Amino acid sequence: MRVGVLTGGGDCPGLNAVIRGIVRKGVQEYGYDFVGFRDGWRGPLEGATVPLGIPAVRGILPRGGTILGSSRTNPLEAADGIRRIRDNLAKLDVQALVVIGGEDTLGVAARLSDAYGVPCVGVPKTIDNDLSATDYTFGFDTAVNIATEAIDRLHTTAESHMRVLVVEVMGRHAGWIALHSGLAGGANVILIPEQRFDIEQVCDWVTSRFRASYAPIVVVAEGAVPRDGAMVLKDGSTDSFGHVRLSGVGEWLAKEIERRTGKEARTTVLGHVQRGGTPSAFDRWLATRFGLHAVDCVRDGDFGTMVALRATEIVRVPLAEATARLKTVDPALYREAGVFFG
Amino acid sequence: MRVGVLTGGGDCPGLNAVIRGIVRKGVQEYGYDFVGFRDGWRGPLEGATVPLGIPAVRGILPRGGTILGSSRTNPLEAADGIRRIRDNLAKLDVQALVVIGGEDTLGVAARLSDAYGVPCVGVPKTIDNDLSATDYTFGFDTAVNIATEAIDRLHTTAESHMRVLVVEVMGRHAGWIALHSGLAGGANVILIPEQRFDIEQVCDWVTSRFRASYAPIVVVAEGAVPRDGAMVLKDGSTDSFGHVRLSGVGEWLAKEIERRTGKEARTTVLGHVQRGGTPSAFDRWLATRFGLHAVDCVRDGDFGTMVALRATEIVRVPLAEATARLKTVDPALYREAGVFFG
Amino acid sequence: MRVGVLTGGGDCPGLNAVIRGIVRKGVQEYGYDFVGFRDGWRGPLEGATVPLGIPAVRGILPRGGTILGSSRTNPLEAADGIRRIRDNLAKLDVQALVVIGGEDTLGVAARLSDAYGVPCVGVPKTIDNDLSATDYTFGFDTAVNIATEAIDRLHTTAESHMRVLVVEVMGRHAGWIALHSGLAGGANVILIPEQRFDIEQVCDWVTSRFRASYAPIVVVAEGAVPRDGAMVLKDGSTDSFGHVRLSGVGEWLAKEIERRTGKEARTTVLGHVQRGGTPSAFDRWLATRFGLHAVDCVRDGDFGTMVALRATEIVRVPLAEATARLKTVDPALYREAGVFFG
Amino acid sequence: MRVGVLTGGGDCPGLNAVIRGIVRKGVQEYGYDFVGFRDGWRGPLEGATVPLGIPAVRGILPRGGTILGSSRTNPLEAADGIRRIRDNLAKLDVQALVVIGGEDTLGVAARLSDAYGVPCVGVPKTIDNDLSATDYTFGFDTAVNIATEAIDRLHTTAESHMRVLVVEVMGRHAGWIALHSGLAGGANVILIPEQRFDIEQVCDWVTSRFRASYAPIVVVAEGAVPRDGAMVLKDGSTDSFGHVRLSGVGEWLAKEIERRTGKEARTTVLGHVQRGGTPSAFDRWLATRFGLHAVDCVRDGDFGTMVALRATEIVRVPLAEATARLKTVDPALYREAGVFFG
Repeated sequence: MRVGVLTGGGDCPGLNAVIRGIVRKGVQEYGYDFVGFRDGWRGPLEGATVPLGIPAVRGILPRGGTILGSSRTNPLEAADGIRRIRDNLAKLDVQALVVIGGEDTLGVAARLSDAYGVPCVGVPKTIDNDLSATDYTFGFDTAVNIATEAIDRLHTTAESHMRVLVVEVMGRHAGWIALHSGLAGGANVILIPEQRFDIEQVCDWVTSRFRASYAPIVVVAEGAVPRDGAMVLKDGSTDSFGHVRLSGVGEWLAKEIERRTGKEARTTVLGHVQRGGTPSAFDRWLATRFGLHAVDCVRDGDFGTMVALRATEIVRVPLAEATARLKTVDPALYREAGVFFG
Repeated sequence: MRVGVLTGGGDCPGLNAVIRGIVRKGVQEYGYDFVGFRDGWRGPLEGATVPLGIPAVRGILPRGGTILGSSRTNPLEAADGIRRIRDNLAKLDVQALVVIGGEDTLGVAARLSDAYGVPCVGVPKTIDNDLSATDYTFGFDTAVNIATEAIDRLHTTAESHMRVLVVEVMGRHAGWIALHSGLAGGANVILIPEQRFDIEQVCDWVTSRFRASYAPIVVVAEGAVPRDGAMVLKDGSTDSFGHVRLSGVGEWLAKEIERRTGKEARTTVLGHVQRGGTPSAFDRWLATRFGLHAVDCVRDGDFGTMVALRATEIVRVPLAEATARLKTVDPALYREAGVFFG
Repeated sequence: MRVGVLTGGGDCPGLNAVIRGIVRKGVQEYGYDFVGFRDGWRGPLEGATVPLGIPAVRGILPRGGTILGSSRTNPLEAADGIRRIRDNLAKLDVQALVVIGGEDTLGVAARLSDAYGVPCVGVPKTIDNDLSATDYTFGFDTAVNIATEAIDRLHTTAESHMRVLVVEVMGRHAGWIALHSGLAGGANVILIPEQRFDIEQVCDWVTSRFRASYAPIVVVAEGAVPRDGAMVLKDGSTDSFGHVRLSGVGEWLAKEIERRTGKEARTTVLGHVQRGGTPSAFDRWLATRFGLHAVDCVRDGDFGTMVALRATEIVRVPLAEATARLKTVDPALYREAGVFFG
Repeated sequence: MRVGVLTGGGDCPGLNAVIRGIVRKGVQEYGYDFVGFRDGWRGPLEGATVPLGIPAVRGILPRGGTILGSSRTNPLEAADGIRRIRDNLAKLDVQALVVIGGEDTLGVAARLSDAYGVPCVGVPKTIDNDLSATDYTFGFDTAVNIATEAIDRLHTTAESHMRVLVVEVMGRHAGWIALHSGLAGGANVILIPEQRFDIEQVCDWVTSRFRASYAPIVVVAEGAVPRDGAMVLKDGSTDSFGHVRLSGVGEWLAKEIERRTGKEARTTVLGHVQRGGTPSAFDRWLATRFGLHAVDCVRDGDFGTMVALRATEIVRVPLAEATARLKTVDPALYREAGVFFG
């Protein structure tokens, strides 16, 4: 049996641990052959492969990134994409495909599996932790740890200068990283995309914190937006490709807080450091187990499924359903954190 | 309403985060007064208290240890212990007690609550993660991260000298830390208390690893024991109090591996560094939420209960039941890890 | 003898370690009394003090920030500043002042000492490491470690997506942080304020790195500028106080690299995380020793001097001379690093 | 020109950074060919080589260990060792040898260079930082950081249980790691090989710390010994090879402190974690610069020399002299630290 593996979408700590789990178990316990496809769906689309056996996965467990490369190539939008993938799989004698990726990458796997009978098994990957079918995705814990360490460091700077420090973290549609790192880092305000924020309220929290003789830390998800439509993120300048540049919500917040409270405010945008580098122990554990269970799905001929975490168990869910609904922060959970605001 | 808080048993990263969660919510949302009891059950037994309000919990979220101190004092074994505790609670006008601790500490809370009507709420604490009522306990993730980082570092030493490195981690009765850190660290052998190990088999794994031109890392829980009764951990010497000293299983393993395989072997006993210092982001999150929910139990008059984690939810379970059964590593889960042995 | 201590200028890991060193040795060995002045020169100017004895310095060694607070208040610009300081020192019976700060803060100390006979001892503090009188300043090693860890993480993201990653680090006038972290992190381009850079050359290095099938990391000091005057950092928008906002050199670089090479480029601005939080072991060591030696200067009546590091020794230099010359990166040292560019 | 490279002696973070520096500059600037010798002097003795070019050094900068392997093989003790090395160098057409190692490894290089005209350049390597010819050696800063982090963690455990914690760190003949990490970690007692310690004095410091309501941390170098001959480290048992086992000074201290003060004491032996894993930024910087300057020595035909750090400069010293004298902790420096004892 020959099995293909690909990784799609954005970088995420733990991808290599998944690949290693798949290959170690597939080779040693089931005697499979593996083919690595390069750069997500570009690999099967163009027949771009890389050798994938025990030697290739030696030593990759602690490494960030993906030895297979990644891309956002969508074969459903490519001319004749499906046919080319099927031809390439046939040519390479690949009888099953393990697809590691987020909503978009897995959406393609669901289509290929359901509509075209390409035998796919999915492994969920989103650093934002916003897939409803699984309790956690790997990479999330690493991102939260990195953001928390940054917040720890920023506290002392805020205190020494009695300044507001705004920390912008990842999370376009879901505020999980902001909520977890904000709570773990002892933030005084946490703003998430799920709940439009009131800039007046934010300034009240900031002011109340200063009244207690402490300096406030505001953690904001990149996708958070203010309640009224007033926020104009466009700053009028254009980027190198002629597009109007958007400044982030973090910078906007610092400006508004300064303007409204008269207190100095600074912004730190954590950016890509949140998604690179060595995975945390939890993410290595989760990613490794996802890999082991994905190859078990292949052995069982259980295609069109995705592995997922439920409490401490790895389970299987239908691929189609898996990517259907975004997992957002429950209002009750956000309210729970509110006791620390201000 | 006046609420007492105590922390008992061994040190564990996250204790301060629990205390902070209790006090912040209790004071701000419910208007409670708090009394900190010193050194676990010694506090209520001797009436030893420490002031506990918002100022006391400022800045303690990232700090290891416990601002309340801890001990293994068991009031059930003290002369007239129950009466003295009830007297002291009455004298201090303490109407509820939040007890943060492991099996022993919570066992006392269960007795006090059930048999004597002392209104207790429990918060589970075991760095070994071996309480059956909760998916995870705080401190565990920190310990696993520390052990994993140590294993990462030991790999390079093992490779450079082509030596066996044995890493002894915590876990007297359950192998969770060994299993998680061993998997996350890419260990070649993992030994846990739940499954007696065969030293021949261990040496086979070691030898097979060397044959592949790599050096083996053996992760062993302190409570692991060999299959046959042959292991004599006593080394014949006596300690300063005249007790016969036991050398650990880690040292025994290194000696046996050297003797049987002729390969150099060294042991590192991680010891107390696993349980001190700043908690990981996950542990701060879990500990904080345990604190918030424990004070909700008090508000609801829901005594004789313990907070617990189920998947991503905090739930309540009866205190008595909570400490009844040790959560050990499932044989299937241990077998799952076996693909990486050797 | 009563001694005042103040910390001025920007936050820097190690400030608390200096304070602790001064107080521990001053109290225990010389029997001094200490007065902490709040917020840099604002303290002596306004008579704002904080108690400073053994209890105040317990546990502060590993903490970032400064327990005394800081500010950029310049008493030489305040009406009647000198007189008010002398009056306040006299009123408080402070006979010597230990001043911990950078160029500006120490410049005031030099003036006070030389022109007005106020007995000052200086401790150099600049996270940028740009004081010529000392081999290293504390805080620098911490900043370099934080920047290096970030670069380590960014490598994997760059590789996975074959993108250029630009990392902007601190350093307005001197490129020490960029040079050290760039070398330690394996950057492919390092740009420093001391040498105007040629954007064409930068793009050549970027392109050559991609040709070798690797993704480039560009480390740039915030104060670096391109050779021709072409860089327009102003982006046309205005900030909350009506000032024209400058976008940083990091963002400008990413735009230009994208435009010129057609490769995707992203910027991470490390910002304040570089200067907050717990100091590295080296910085704790250096800061502690600076503190011990500063109080020895007081005992010796050696005022108008500053402590400095020369190789592994702490020496004393005249305060005036100490802040006279900026220590910039030697062209030969920068050329040495050039072997890793491209 | 063909240049051989070897690494000898114990593992040390930064070895790979040296190798990379040598190869990158040697290939790119001087057009050299390189040969990697395996496992220290075993390589040239047995003609055991490994390819060493730009591809071999890609990505090794942040990795601990050595891609060349190491050993303690001493060719001066091997039958006909010198002749075999010269024959192998001639056969492989190796015209210069860069030798990275400690006292023993470099001692051989000095002999080969001086007595037999084998053109050697040395790079000093000792994690203990005990070579007199250089201000610092790479690996030392990493070890001190790891030990300091461990001490940080142990403080909270010590405080929570009011116990003595003894931390045994590396340093057989010199106490640099103990002194630096002890100062940086805020230890209450630091014991080094250079000064025999008085167990009574140690117990006084321990007791005085407890009187101040804090728990003491004792940092002890593995080579420290008590003043009177009383310490019997032999514990009577024998190891797997029949040798009498020595228990370390750390365990002995904990026993003695318990016996004499009646306080609970625990020992943590940091062991191999101090010398493995990724190097600190400082060590990567120093190791890289050592590599660059070593290959410059080759280019200059400056054989029989060793590179060394003096303040912030890399200099060259005669190999013979370089290893002649152990650099131990100056009594004055140790006294300076004494203000923090007790």
